[in-house]
Amino acid sequence: MSENHNSQPLTAAEISTAVNVMGQQARQASYALSQLSSEQKNAMLRAMAQEIRQRAAQIIEANQQDLQAAAEKGLSAAMLDRLRLDESRIAAMASGIDQVATLHDPCGELLSDVTRPNGMRIRQVRVPIGVIGIIYESRPNVTSDAAVLCLKSGNATILRGGSEAIHSNCAIADALQAGGEAAGLPKHAIQLIPFTDRESVTSLAKMDRYLDLIIPRGGKGLIETVVSLARMPVIKHYDGICHTYIDIDADPAMAISISVNAKTQKPSVCNALETLLVHEKIAAEILPPLAIALREKNVEIRACEQTLAYIPDAIEATEEDWTTEYLDYIISVKIVTDVTAAIEHINYYGSHHSDCIVTSNQVTAEIFLRSIDSACVFHNVSTRFADGEEFGFGAEIGISTDKLHARGPMALRELTSYQYRIVGDGIIK
Amino acid sequence: MSENHNSQPLTAAEISTAVNVMGQQARQASYALSQLSSEQKNAMLRAMAQEIRQRAAQIIEANQQDLQAAAEKGLSAAMLDRLRLDESRIAAMASGIDQVATLHDPCGELLSDVTRPNGMRIRQVRVPIGVIGIIYESRPNVTSDAAVLCLKSGNATILRGGSEAIHSNCAIADALQAGGEAAGLPKHAIQLIPFTDRESVTSLAKMDRYLDLIIPRGGKGLIETVVSLARMPVIKHYDGICHTYIDIDADPAMAISISVNAKTQKPSVCNALETLLVHEKIAAEILPPLAIALREKNVEIRACEQTLAYIPDAIEATEEDWTTEYLDYIISVKIVTDVTAAIEHINYYGSHHSDCIVTSNQVTAEIFLRSIDSACVFHNVSTRFADGEEFGFGAEIGISTDKLHARGPMALRELTSYQYRIVGDGIIK
Repeated sequence: MSENHNSQPLTAAEISTAVNVMGQQARQASYALSQLSSEQKNAMLRAMAQEIRQRAAQIIEANQQDLQAAAEKGLSAAMLDRLRLDESRIAAMASGIDQVATLHDPCGELLSDVTRPNGMRIRQVRVPIGVIGIIYESRPNVTSDAAVLCLKSGNATILRGGSEAIHSNCAIADALQAGGEAAGLPKHAIQLIPFTDRESVTSLAKMDRYLDLIIPRGGKGLIETVVSLARMPVIKHYDGICHTYIDIDADPAMAISISVNAKTQKPSVCNALETLLVHEKIAAEILPPLAIALREKNVEIRACEQTLAYIPDAIEATEEDWTTEYLDYIISVKIVTDVTAAIEHINYYGSHHSDCIVTSNQVTAEIFLRSIDSACVFHNVSTRFADGEEFGFGAEIGISTDKLHARGPMALRELTSYQYRIVGDGIIK
Repeated sequence: MSENHNSQPLTAAEISTAVNVMGQQARQASYALSQLSSEQKNAMLRAMAQEIRQRAAQIIEANQQDLQAAAEKGLSAAMLDRLRLDESRIAAMASGIDQVATLHDPCGELLSDVTRPNGMRIRQVRVPIGVIGIIYESRPNVTSDAAVLCLKSGNATILRGGSEAIHSNCAIADALQAGGEAAGLPKHAIQLIPFTDRESVTSLAKMDRYLDLIIPRGGKGLIETVVSLARMPVIKHYDGICHTYIDIDADPAMAISISVNAKTQKPSVCNALETLLVHEKIAAEILPPLAIALREKNVEIRACEQTLAYIPDAIEATEEDWTTEYLDYIISVKIVTDVTAAIEHINYYGSHHSDCIVTSNQVTAEIFLRSIDSACVFHNVSTRFADGEEFGFGAEIGISTDKLHARGPMALRELTSYQYRIVGDGIIK
């Protein structure tokens, strides 16, 4: 398979046929996977980790090909860094797999168990979803991270990575398959699409007969494409336009510490703070020291008109700032009249990801927690904690900004479905 | 609103604009709905039921307009019957609403409550989904059934019924809105699209900013259209190609009683039996008396070649029979070598809705229950019990053949999402 991406370009119809064959094989594999015990899956995972370690040199060699091609294409230093694999990143990938082997397997959990008046016993049991498609860009470690979480939760995976990482992705997928199969992994449980043409995305998205779920991981363009093409459920992560609202009853030191942490601890991630809302009655007290603290961390401030009175040298914010995910050392700041105005702003401009209130008033906090239409709502906690690891989930496949099936940090449990198993003694009425 | 459908036809752009305004209004209403207590929602529901009763004459009059137009178009007697409303059907609609008022409200349920080592407390709370679009055909009672289940679960609804029931649907929606609003229902919580053009379906399906979920209820053509257009999650019910497998260890009397019940108790519904699979070693004992029992109920038998040896005057089945949902007094019958062959047939040809094994062998039953990839798997129980009422859910909005979010009977709980509410004391690490 790792050879195909170098061969003659295929027609759209040929790619579609090949992807559909992979789908059919994945469906078959998913039935075998659903019957595996946790112990069997864990043994496969450990064998996969071992194979990744043993093939480190080969994987780095494949990665060099990608890096060279990327450099020739003129990719940015940041992009090249995302693409790069070295001994330590490969070791981290392998220990990530071992870590997944230690996590609790959600499959088989009894969600409910009811006996009806006619004697019919209805058990609702957690089962794998089936076949999951993952479409992703650049970072080759997603090949491993996504495949092993899907395997642990009993699902077959069809991976479709970006063209810039194709050699790395093929080398990693080959190692996962070989290591897993030596420990009994069903053939075709983990498949990587060797084509990086757009047609392979289209084929996946239309293949609702074989694909139960599609998870796009990447930029907005990729997600938009998948959403508009997909015939099966999509779980996606759009923007992380996260807010912190500093209430009139906030402890000023706490408000500043949470805001600075949420903005600057790692600005490039989805749970970083983008817009700060400040109650008008605490603005005079909070804003000047907050501006000093943010600027010590080199944060650029974009301020609403009222805020400019307290931070005169800030840049004036435009309407666009309220809907921008900077992912950078930039923050927008707006003064609001009260918690109601803060809630309205967040529900209207936000991306329903993670939002925070800083207040010592329990009543105000409760109103905020109950009224914000976001996956995670925080009270006196930095939005940076919207994370599967921080939540104790062990590992996450992403953070969903959808409301159906999975919302917020999405881990093993969210990679499962359920089934009703009903038992009786000849019940017909 | 009930007048618009008679006015000048609108352009596609005008319909799209109008639908988007409804979407925006529904989103606003959904925030107000999410704050209502169960008692408030129940009072609104009872007021809506009362208003339906009071407006019975008006609703019947509107329905007469639909019936007349349908008769002129030459709709079948069955279609006309689905469309017809009379005193007793309207009374049933109203008492259905009162019934929903008595059901448990899932909103606010605490799904998990964890305190992390850093002191951060994470509560996972059940909340409404937000705004739900329902696209349906013919039966005007869906207008009421769907709207009240969405309201009870705290969701705003945008309804788009079929053209043949437009007068009835408008009259019912008007009554629901008027009755509800008198009891405090937020304006725009229940809206009916007064346009029956295809463009209104397209507009709804593309409106992912305002619509969190779309539920199509109707024929395969409607569902296919919605699936291919929708940018938001769709929960759907495709076919109900349900199987019963009679194992070698089946009690013959029970096998015949379950098969006859599942096929003939109500053949027009999705959980009725379509294909019977019989273990080859019990075929001689089962098939002749089963054929007699089925024919007493006027069931036509389509038999595989082997089955013809036991039921010589049956019609020979073709490949198409294994994928056909007859919804009629017709059954396909196939002899299989063992439970494994039965499982393979069902997973390949079935629609993953509801399937049954009849056996007294617990080991075989367990293999079947764990291997069938369907929403409901039955052991010694007729597939007719795949139903929200039979499961004790009180009322259902449909039976999902999807695996994400809702699988099988879909009731109030499945009309909710969840949210993480995280509380701390200034946590930044």
